[in-house]
Amino acid sequence: MGSGKILVAQGGGPTAVINQSLVGVVLEARRFRNVERIYGARYGVRGIINEDFVDLTQETSHNLELVANTPSSALGSTRDKPDVKYCQEIFEVLRAHEIEHFFYIGGNDSSDTVRIVSLEAQKAGYPLRCIHIPKTIDNDLVGNDHTPGFPSAARFVTQAFAGANLDNASLPGVYVGVVMGRHAGFLTAASALGRKFPEDGPHLIYLPERTVSLDSFLADVKGVHDRLGRCVIAVSEGARDASGAPMASRLVKNLEHDAHGNVQLSGNGALADLLCEEIKSALKIKRVRGDTFGYLQRSFIGCVSDVDQREAREVGEKAVQFAMWGDTDGSVAIKRTGAYSVGYELLPLDAVAGKTRVMEDEFISASGTDITDAFRNYLRPLLGSGMPDAFRLRFSPVAKVRNTA
Amino acid sequence: MGSGKILVAQGGGPTAVINQSLVGVVLEARRFRNVERIYGARYGVRGIINEDFVDLTQETSHNLELVANTPSSALGSTRDKPDVKYCQEIFEVLRAHEIEHFFYIGGNDSSDTVRIVSLEAQKAGYPLRCIHIPKTIDNDLVGNDHTPGFPSAARFVTQAFAGANLDNASLPGVYVGVVMGRHAGFLTAASALGRKFPEDGPHLIYLPERTVSLDSFLADVKGVHDRLGRCVIAVSEGARDASGAPMASRLVKNLEHDAHGNVQLSGNGALADLLCEEIKSALKIKRVRGDTFGYLQRSFIGCVSDVDQREAREVGEKAVQFAMWGDTDGSVAIKRTGAYSVGYELLPLDAVAGKTRVMEDEFISASGTDITDAFRNYLRPLLGSGMPDAFRLRFSPVAKVRNTA
Repeated sequence: MGSGKILVAQGGGPTAVINQSLVGVVLEARRFRNVERIYGARYGVRGIINEDFVDLTQETSHNLELVANTPSSALGSTRDKPDVKYCQEIFEVLRAHEIEHFFYIGGNDSSDTVRIVSLEAQKAGYPLRCIHIPKTIDNDLVGNDHTPGFPSAARFVTQAFAGANLDNASLPGVYVGVVMGRHAGFLTAASALGRKFPEDGPHLIYLPERTVSLDSFLADVKGVHDRLGRCVIAVSEGARDASGAPMASRLVKNLEHDAHGNVQLSGNGALADLLCEEIKSALKIKRVRGDTFGYLQRSFIGCVSDVDQREAREVGEKAVQFAMWGDTDGSVAIKRTGAYSVGYELLPLDAVAGKTRVMEDEFISASGTDITDAFRNYLRPLLGSGMPDAFRLRFSPVAKVRNTA
Repeated sequence: MGSGKILVAQGGGPTAVINQSLVGVVLEARRFRNVERIYGARYGVRGIINEDFVDLTQETSHNLELVANTPSSALGSTRDKPDVKYCQEIFEVLRAHEIEHFFYIGGNDSSDTVRIVSLEAQKAGYPLRCIHIPKTIDNDLVGNDHTPGFPSAARFVTQAFAGANLDNASLPGVYVGVVMGRHAGFLTAASALGRKFPEDGPHLIYLPERTVSLDSFLADVKGVHDRLGRCVIAVSEGARDASGAPMASRLVKNLEHDAHGNVQLSGNGALADLLCEEIKSALKIKRVRGDTFGYLQRSFIGCVSDVDQREAREVGEKAVQFAMWGDTDGSVAIKRTGAYSVGYELLPLDAVAGKTRVMEDEFISASGTDITDAFRNYLRPLLGSGMPDAFRLRFSPVAKVRNTA
């Protein structure tokens, strides 16, 4: 082949392991003698348009390993959602730099960008190999058992609810934790893995895959609180009311829209606050607290799944191998091959791009406010090793001597 | 002595290591032959009034060790703030059960409860040894180098801001993180320990120990954003405006007051949301996000300082030793004896009870929006071992070929 130039970029929201995939690409590409230069684009596709490239061939393998273990996109990212014209511009820059392999690490929107760029190259008869590398904490890419980044975010959510449950058991009341996930409830559902004892929370889980009226929400909360004297609730930011609209979109005054036309659901505490107000006023419960996990759940340093790290590295490596040994563009996908083991496939870009996976029905309980054992079995191995565990005292009551009535 | 009965209870907000202190009391007390029974009161002082006691003598040492590593109060806690009458009732219950040693793990309010109960016992001529065991993530107990629970919460805040900074660097904008701490800024100040590179955030830190007008806040943010194209801000929930009032108290409509007469600052996202709105509207910055760390910072399971664990265990052990070998009531205090090493003293209850420590001036920069090296040196050893570290690529720019103008 010609130039031997590779370009890699990172798109969308950061994850705890997105740099593993980047480093997987770089280190694997170094093994191929025909690869002369490995460029990185800063700030995703915007960096391509701006020709903001760095030469990753001139980075030490030692520092690359350290960066691999650092969360958030080391090259920078962007929320730009390229349309066809934008993708044509991307292609023109790639051609001008004689790039022969384009690797883009990202979610649904990023896979669609790769798809359009791939089409442009084909139309122009330019030999460009385009590979999409999966990444999203939302776990909403079709064709994948799960996506890199999700297991570590799920681990954060699991650990957060395990702690919130202990806090709530110690100082009883109602606790609402709002979790990211616009359309897919996987991350919110991960809250259930924090449970250990039968009375542990979250006692109620509200997913975007099901609708709930405010009245029925309040009845659910009252039921748990009457029974246990406390209630821990996990709510997806994308939880929908009876009409199917996001509850947050009715509650928040000035809704911000991003470049993808999506309502901005994260970055504020409005949904948690409003649900807490409703619970206080309707149920007359005094101690009601809400937390919005926000950016902590995707960027917290020091809460990462080792399984996620390994797989994120491998999808980067496999992307290069598919590009070098294969002859088609595509999207790398994780397939579960055992309990627990994975393999990797290259899916057609059409099969992944712009599609959204949501939680399968078998993962959601009949009540719609809990998860099933199938989901527990699905998620548990992804959380990785060294999960912290909660224990409690086994109480031996002492007889009263004063209030013995 | 007579009955050989000990009572231990936990008060106030949970911490990641409060059960270490509980277990320290129980296991150390088992070494004394004159101790016949070790009772625990469920839900703090309320459990004493209700005679809701459990017999910790009938708990295995193995399970106690597991509970020690579990965050949040294993016996349960309370927000009740006892007045003199309440404390007299506590004393009457202790006397009725022939309790001879009373250990209460908690913060300022708890130490005041111990002080009053101690006085009641003296007035009645009843031989009761009363020891307060320090605990608070706010680090606001006087007479202590620091308090158990603070180091682990500080570690969470440090790690959270290290991650938030990476996220913000990847997708530039303004990020506001609101941290607990009504009067003392120690926990908010811990955010600075997440910085590594000169441009890292938090770029601005707002502590309750200093006041700031909204105009000056906005000017600070604009200055950083103009310089770096982004800005990460740490704000204490107790941050005060120019009049000295908590900013949150002006912003939040229906302010809740707790039994201590304190305005409820935690448990909602109002302060972060309002500051974000102000930044958006006044500075015309598009990407502005706010997180309120809320209960995550005090109860997250799996983010704990090993130094904190060790010291929390030791204050429990020392409490029993002071009670058994000494002849005064008091509050166990941590003193720094080396870099890094600590010792323990028993302070008079009067010296600690109801007093609030705030950040020393030497810990706050002249600007009022940053911390000093003295604070960095003070906090670093408390965070413990195995702190995650962030690395970045060393960029080698590639020459442009198209936009070469």
